[in-house]
Amino acid sequence: MSDAFGEMVVFSGNAHRELARRICDYLNVPVGRVEVFKFANDNTFVRILQNVRQRDVFIVQPTAEPVNDRIMEMLIMIDAAQRASAGRITAVIPYYSYARTDKKDQPRVPITARLIADLLETAGTDRVIMVDLHAAQVQGFFRVPVDELTALPKQVEYFQEKGLENSVVVATDIGISKRARDFADRMNAPLAIIEKRRTSNHDDVETLNVIGNVDGRAAILFDDEISTGGTVIAAAEALARFGATDIYACATHGVLPEDASQRLQQTPEIREVVVTDTVPVNGNKLTPQITVLSIADLLGEAISRIHRGESVGAMFT
Amino acid sequence: MSDAFGEMVVFSGNAHRELARRICDYLNVPVGRVEVFKFANDNTFVRILQNVRQRDVFIVQPTAEPVNDRIMEMLIMIDAAQRASAGRITAVIPYYSYARTDKKDQPRVPITARLIADLLETAGTDRVIMVDLHAAQVQGFFRVPVDELTALPKQVEYFQEKGLENSVVVATDIGISKRARDFADRMNAPLAIIEKRRTSNHDDVETLNVIGNVDGRAAILFDDEISTGGTVIAAAEALARFGATDIYACATHGVLPEDASQRLQQTPEIREVVVTDTVPVNGNKLTPQITVLSIADLLGEAISRIHRGESVGAMFT
Amino acid sequence: MSDAFGEMVVFSGNAHRELARRICDYLNVPVGRVEVFKFANDNTFVRILQNVRQRDVFIVQPTAEPVNDRIMEMLIMIDAAQRASAGRITAVIPYYSYARTDKKDQPRVPITARLIADLLETAGTDRVIMVDLHAAQVQGFFRVPVDELTALPKQVEYFQEKGLENSVVVATDIGISKRARDFADRMNAPLAIIEKRRTSNHDDVETLNVIGNVDGRAAILFDDEISTGGTVIAAAEALARFGATDIYACATHGVLPEDASQRLQQTPEIREVVVTDTVPVNGNKLTPQITVLSIADLLGEAISRIHRGESVGAMFT
Amino acid sequence: MSDAFGEMVVFSGNAHRELARRICDYLNVPVGRVEVFKFANDNTFVRILQNVRQRDVFIVQPTAEPVNDRIMEMLIMIDAAQRASAGRITAVIPYYSYARTDKKDQPRVPITARLIADLLETAGTDRVIMVDLHAAQVQGFFRVPVDELTALPKQVEYFQEKGLENSVVVATDIGISKRARDFADRMNAPLAIIEKRRTSNHDDVETLNVIGNVDGRAAILFDDEISTGGTVIAAAEALARFGATDIYACATHGVLPEDASQRLQQTPEIREVVVTDTVPVNGNKLTPQITVLSIADLLGEAISRIHRGESVGAMFT
Amino acid sequence: MSDAFGEMVVFSGNAHRELARRICDYLNVPVGRVEVFKFANDNTFVRILQNVRQRDVFIVQPTAEPVNDRIMEMLIMIDAAQRASAGRITAVIPYYSYARTDKKDQPRVPITARLIADLLETAGTDRVIMVDLHAAQVQGFFRVPVDELTALPKQVEYFQEKGLENSVVVATDIGISKRARDFADRMNAPLAIIEKRRTSNHDDVETLNVIGNVDGRAAILFDDEISTGGTVIAAAEALARFGATDIYACATHGVLPEDASQRLQQTPEIREVVVTDTVPVNGNKLTPQITVLSIADLLGEAISRIHRGESVGAMFT
Amino acid sequence: MSDAFGEMVVFSGNAHRELARRICDYLNVPVGRVEVFKFANDNTFVRILQNVRQRDVFIVQPTAEPVNDRIMEMLIMIDAAQRASAGRITAVIPYYSYARTDKKDQPRVPITARLIADLLETAGTDRVIMVDLHAAQVQGFFRVPVDELTALPKQVEYFQEKGLENSVVVATDIGISKRARDFADRMNAPLAIIEKRRTSNHDDVETLNVIGNVDGRAAILFDDEISTGGTVIAAAEALARFGATDIYACATHGVLPEDASQRLQQTPEIREVVVTDTVPVNGNKLTPQITVLSIADLLGEAISRIHRGESVGAMFT
Repeated sequence: MSDAFGEMVVFSGNAHRELARRICDYLNVPVGRVEVFKFANDNTFVRILQNVRQRDVFIVQPTAEPVNDRIMEMLIMIDAAQRASAGRITAVIPYYSYARTDKKDQPRVPITARLIADLLETAGTDRVIMVDLHAAQVQGFFRVPVDELTALPKQVEYFQEKGLENSVVVATDIGISKRARDFADRMNAPLAIIEKRRTSNHDDVETLNVIGNVDGRAAILFDDEISTGGTVIAAAEALARFGATDIYACATHGVLPEDASQRLQQTPEIREVVVTDTVPVNGNKLTPQITVLSIADLLGEAISRIHRGESVGAMFT
Repeated sequence: MSDAFGEMVVFSGNAHRELARRICDYLNVPVGRVEVFKFANDNTFVRILQNVRQRDVFIVQPTAEPVNDRIMEMLIMIDAAQRASAGRITAVIPYYSYARTDKKDQPRVPITARLIADLLETAGTDRVIMVDLHAAQVQGFFRVPVDELTALPKQVEYFQEKGLENSVVVATDIGISKRARDFADRMNAPLAIIEKRRTSNHDDVETLNVIGNVDGRAAILFDDEISTGGTVIAAAEALARFGATDIYACATHGVLPEDASQRLQQTPEIREVVVTDTVPVNGNKLTPQITVLSIADLLGEAISRIHRGESVGAMFT
Repeated sequence: MSDAFGEMVVFSGNAHRELARRICDYLNVPVGRVEVFKFANDNTFVRILQNVRQRDVFIVQPTAEPVNDRIMEMLIMIDAAQRASAGRITAVIPYYSYARTDKKDQPRVPITARLIADLLETAGTDRVIMVDLHAAQVQGFFRVPVDELTALPKQVEYFQEKGLENSVVVATDIGISKRARDFADRMNAPLAIIEKRRTSNHDDVETLNVIGNVDGRAAILFDDEISTGGTVIAAAEALARFGATDIYACATHGVLPEDASQRLQQTPEIREVVVTDTVPVNGNKLTPQITVLSIADLLGEAISRIHRGESVGAMFT
Repeated sequence: MSDAFGEMVVFSGNAHRELARRICDYLNVPVGRVEVFKFANDNTFVRILQNVRQRDVFIVQPTAEPVNDRIMEMLIMIDAAQRASAGRITAVIPYYSYARTDKKDQPRVPITARLIADLLETAGTDRVIMVDLHAAQVQGFFRVPVDELTALPKQVEYFQEKGLENSVVVATDIGISKRARDFADRMNAPLAIIEKRRTSNHDDVETLNVIGNVDGRAAILFDDEISTGGTVIAAAEALARFGATDIYACATHGVLPEDASQRLQQTPEIREVVVTDTVPVNGNKLTPQITVLSIADLLGEAISRIHRGESVGAMFT
Repeated sequence: MSDAFGEMVVFSGNAHRELARRICDYLNVPVGRVEVFKFANDNTFVRILQNVRQRDVFIVQPTAEPVNDRIMEMLIMIDAAQRASAGRITAVIPYYSYARTDKKDQPRVPITARLIADLLETAGTDRVIMVDLHAAQVQGFFRVPVDELTALPKQVEYFQEKGLENSVVVATDIGISKRARDFADRMNAPLAIIEKRRTSNHDDVETLNVIGNVDGRAAILFDDEISTGGTVIAAAEALARFGATDIYACATHGVLPEDASQRLQQTPEIREVVVTDTVPVNGNKLTPQITVLSIADLLGEAISRIHRGESVGAMFT
Repeated sequence: MSDAFGEMVVFSGNAHRELARRICDYLNVPVGRVEVFKFANDNTFVRILQNVRQRDVFIVQPTAEPVNDRIMEMLIMIDAAQRASAGRITAVIPYYSYARTDKKDQPRVPITARLIADLLETAGTDRVIMVDLHAAQVQGFFRVPVDELTALPKQVEYFQEKGLENSVVVATDIGISKRARDFADRMNAPLAIIEKRRTSNHDDVETLNVIGNVDGRAAILFDDEISTGGTVIAAAEALARFGATDIYACATHGVLPEDASQRLQQTPEIREVVVTDTVPVNGNKLTPQITVLSIADLLGEAISRIHRGESVGAMFT
């Protein structure tokens, strides 16, 4: 065990204090003391309330809605920590917004997922922890080390305990088919894929194909995130048309803006929606249809290993 | 005249389309075509709708409320323009939020004004235009060239036309006393200074002193920005107690969050509030008490000169 | 048209002089004069034989076998051009090696595709042109502008002219399914996907599934590159087992190391292999089974537009 | 206490060996062994005479006259330490020259205070300690952490012990009024401000106003530095005209070039000049009128806390 | 002894596993576990097989033939180690190829020795160890600390044990005359210099002069590296013509491409060729004429001292 | 001819206004208007007095004595030009101080020649022009393009016109022997070398050897610079002892600090000292013994070619 970075301090931005608390419980440390608030002129301000010199600082902040505020809070916290002489700063970003803006697939658009990586490094991030990126290539948008964790073992365990017979894993979209295959692999189930097309930038959904056989099977719709639910709902309806029986939706990130939970709840084809707590799912968002698996222990264990210089990869093998 | 950067294209973010239009009118060019919007998952997206290769791109965006959204929009627009091979990118930021978070005056706080400068450079800004910074040192937070313009001549001209006799210029705060002195200089009026203390981070205002003589004089309260109005209102009340007669408030940036305009309107001591259009002041914000001077021609002229390689300094001498 | 970068000079490394010549024919310019060779001590040396000061320099070099030599040649050429005061340097890399080493999918491996991007930028690349990346996210590994071109229209045109009836497009691997979908879309054909698993780092191929219906159909196996051919051969054999009739293989990059062409030639299930000239396919590599479509005009047109400041995106819409 | 940076080594450049010795006395460590000298060709050379690998290196060097030599010595020492594998390098700059060249207040001038910050970072500085900057914003010119210390408590203590009754604190210039206010606050005294104008770049001083009431009061003229003394002398004469009784001058930095001390000594209005030892004040410079407070213990304590990872902010609360 | 970088791990690339093993024997540590190999598509891949988080990583890799492969292996290993969160990465490069491409001595050539330095830093090297550079200025091509070791004491010791009487040290080229002088100094022998001219980039050798007196003396030809042997052979022939008796060749790096050893062996004027093991000299390369001195203990001791924060300079004084 | 950088503006620092004027005469342009002076507090200040937006700026400043002032002036001028939006900034440094501090030849010393290069790039230099560097490798200390010019043709021409018969070129030191060889080559004369040793950092000179034959010959002592003259004087005395007849000294840079010219004048062995005007040689420095060749036309022609995008290399072939 190296002492290079002094003691561990875990801070939380405003995005998900509950998750930070769970992580600290796992680590058996108090949540670091910090104020993050807005002045009347809408300027975010940060004040770290304990000494962080040469400490090993972790900042927990999924960049969920309000996204730009969460990102700016994160950057400002990092700036404050860096100027306060933190020994090492790890940005713990269980949900990384803009992950899908990761390429120029039309002229003159940004690659915001790379931009955010650059901004984090500019502010002073020494390393990053993320969970189930939409595309793993986003790791390469960072020059600093990235530890990408996965909720896959938890998701597999949860569905295995259900004891579904004759099930099929269905990728909600071709883009997620590779991860869905990994899930199917571990579930020992076949894979099918929904072929859809986004026709504009406004999340509209088109008529859908199902590639692969779902007839008479329990289907687990798989994606990395559920946002408005539109994709999942349309997919579930298509699966029903193609003869799937019980339909589950499984994703790591339950973004669920506005009335997404309600819309899902009102879709009878979907029996259960299983997400994790990378993003806060509570209040109105938490309908009876939704199951939330916690990845706090996963993050806690990763933080502990990073702090002590132990292998994070060994957690998944 | 250099042709180094191809033709000029002026884009506007969502912050202040009216100002961008006025600038383009001055320049006699169409506003550049760009889409800036949010997906349902609260991710900002940008699509530039015209070719910008090797063009001289100007992006007009005061970072007014909602501040963090405006900053992220700006950064993403710059990223898109840079990846679209713009020849040169100038960020035109008539109002620069976070300008007052420019030093560590307590332990473990950020210097956000420097952070934002670094973020803009990271995204790909080649140069910056700003107007009346709270502290001119913020220029030095940038490595790229900054042209800081000033509304001072417009403000002086406006008040000179009023023909106030026996007036005094009053700095609302010691921090702005240097700029207030410049204003007083040009107005050929004496200077007084309000001595106040901010006791916390929450904009509270304390009992106030007036340094200098205001008794029986028409007072022009001077500041760089009017935010909640609390500072100005308290200052006006203090001035009245010290015997000032007509009281005006003059500032470049009319931030005026929430009901600030209404609060000012309900302060009988203040006869008129004079701001510029660096920040949009319209709708509810624009009460009869408020006069808005436009700096669109100032920005337009600066852009024109920068594009043509002419002196900007010469505008102010 | 901007004159910012002086006249255009197109150089070729040793990787693919034939392609460079074709591009220059399209552009109606002579190939730039440069020596690239090795000293007896195996050190690569470069000498640019014509003035490039303030010129708009393009360096054409697919990083095909011998890969590391090609990359180092590229970097050294860029260094020489930069130190010779080139006005702008565009790396034209029709085939980008290491593109598949784009994420950490096991512990303690590199992200070489990002590393190469950083090396190119360090050497002095101002911009990059690439063709049909394995994952479009690799664009985001660069901070400088990337123009990714696609051979898709050429491939579609070629297969449309064949007039195949009742065809199906088959992704050779889940990872390429998104691009295969785009191809299928334009071909107005359904999509199927081969589900395979690489079990080690040594290109072994496992038993394969076909997701989607191929029975009785002419199948066009689609991938971004054909390397040893192992993937395509196994896929073709699987398709035959699942009832596909005529089987074609279509990819942008014909890497074809060692005896790959011979192995393909000896696979009776594959009627034709269609690649482009992003990588040199000649001599032994060019068997009667292989058709090579040239993308020289595509690259030439892109270079011309970049030089003149015209839209590259407009080439594909 | 972290061991991240090995043992502490404190070096002194040639600027102020006496101060370095006092600091080392406080810390109870020997002054680090280093040679800093000029060759006959006027080239500064540095040779560090003890091992600094992975050591926590502090370099004490106010950049007082000869300013450019002191800065270059500093940069070269940092380069030598960095190439000698120092674990961490802290530049201890009690007096930061060029601090007043911190903005473009006329066309085409440098922002040298930012430039020097960049040079220090380029040379390899990991962090900086400074004392009473002219404008605290200079902190933000650095990307590395800055600890700005203040002599204010020492100055307050010194003047409180005098037991002046009916005193007033007078800012020598509007630019220093904010710091003067802080001093007045702690002295529990009112504030007045001298309004002067610099009409050229050559330190000329104009006719002066006094804003606020000084009649019949003991006045403490307050500034961050006393350079030629011209400002202070003119201010004292103005205060006398406005009725001030005993006049003291108080500043952190006693730059006092050439015959400044003599000129002050010959100004009967000024009873005492109180500065600190951030800059060497000795020999001819140290007239009977001048009192020098030592900040060696302040710097020593800050270094000790930085080395041990303890809060520096806690020194001032 | 500092614990800043955790335990020491020494990896070897493919260039010289024997040397790495000798170094690890000296250090009494196992060679670090890593795979470095090529895929069928000629892409180099690296997999580090043990945890390196916060470890002090040393990567041993002379960049001998195949040069570009060795460099790319090195860069990719560094990238992998950096992304695996190594605490510190030291590139141990006993032989630094491209060292002679260190200036622009003709128009439009690269400075590859600087380029490689930049690439190593970009990949994530924190420091470098090298041995007997052709020009010591190459140290300055790096911003990170460089420890340049020298085999000179070993070479001197070896030749002193021979007890040659009346010997002369001969620089094979004017470029190496300074190092040859240092060798002559320690040998207490006079210096002579071969004056030759390289007339092209293809290693041709011209007619040679001998400056200084060699008649009747035992001559030790001195250079930093022996490549094709052409220089040494021509020098030996010239020395014989000028009357030298026994002729030895001494160099640190025995590059010896292709049949260089054989050509040397067939040169009767050369009695013995003395090199070190910075580059592998074995198999066909190792003729009876060649003596190989090992510098493994030198490298081992330097690594040990760097790891423990002890002086490396002290090894040579 | 490219218009990329607008019109040419040539500024001079304080180091050598006469040279700048000669260059501008050659170019037929006025010297650019700029003020460079010191405030009373010894702070250097710069004010550029004409518009430089998008102009092609050249700053002429040899870094001769007072060296550190000249370097800081240069850096501050560059900062001012960059912040004033200069299109391109070329540092014209005919004499580059610190060029001999280019390696670590003893423990814990700086590599100041690299440091200065980094500082120049940090300040905003886009390219550099230098003349006859001590070691050409210093070119590689820069990442930006360097054009190194040489006075060699002028020196050769001057000595050829003397018509010396039976002459020998003598390198004053082994370190300069390579350049001396080039000079000898062009003079068609043999080469001899003075072997001396510097025993400390204080320019002491030891007993000297002459390698090669000088007996009965006219000797031209060759070096890149003459500083205190100690080296040249000792060399001349040694040459006289070894039988040389007329002795000349030839160097590019006549640094000549303090009474160096007088000491040379008092050395009867030296008939003539030939230097160039890279450094000002005037007043007391210019004794009858000294001949100054002007390189103003060389620099003027290089500037002209750089501005117009023409080959500089072509000037020397």
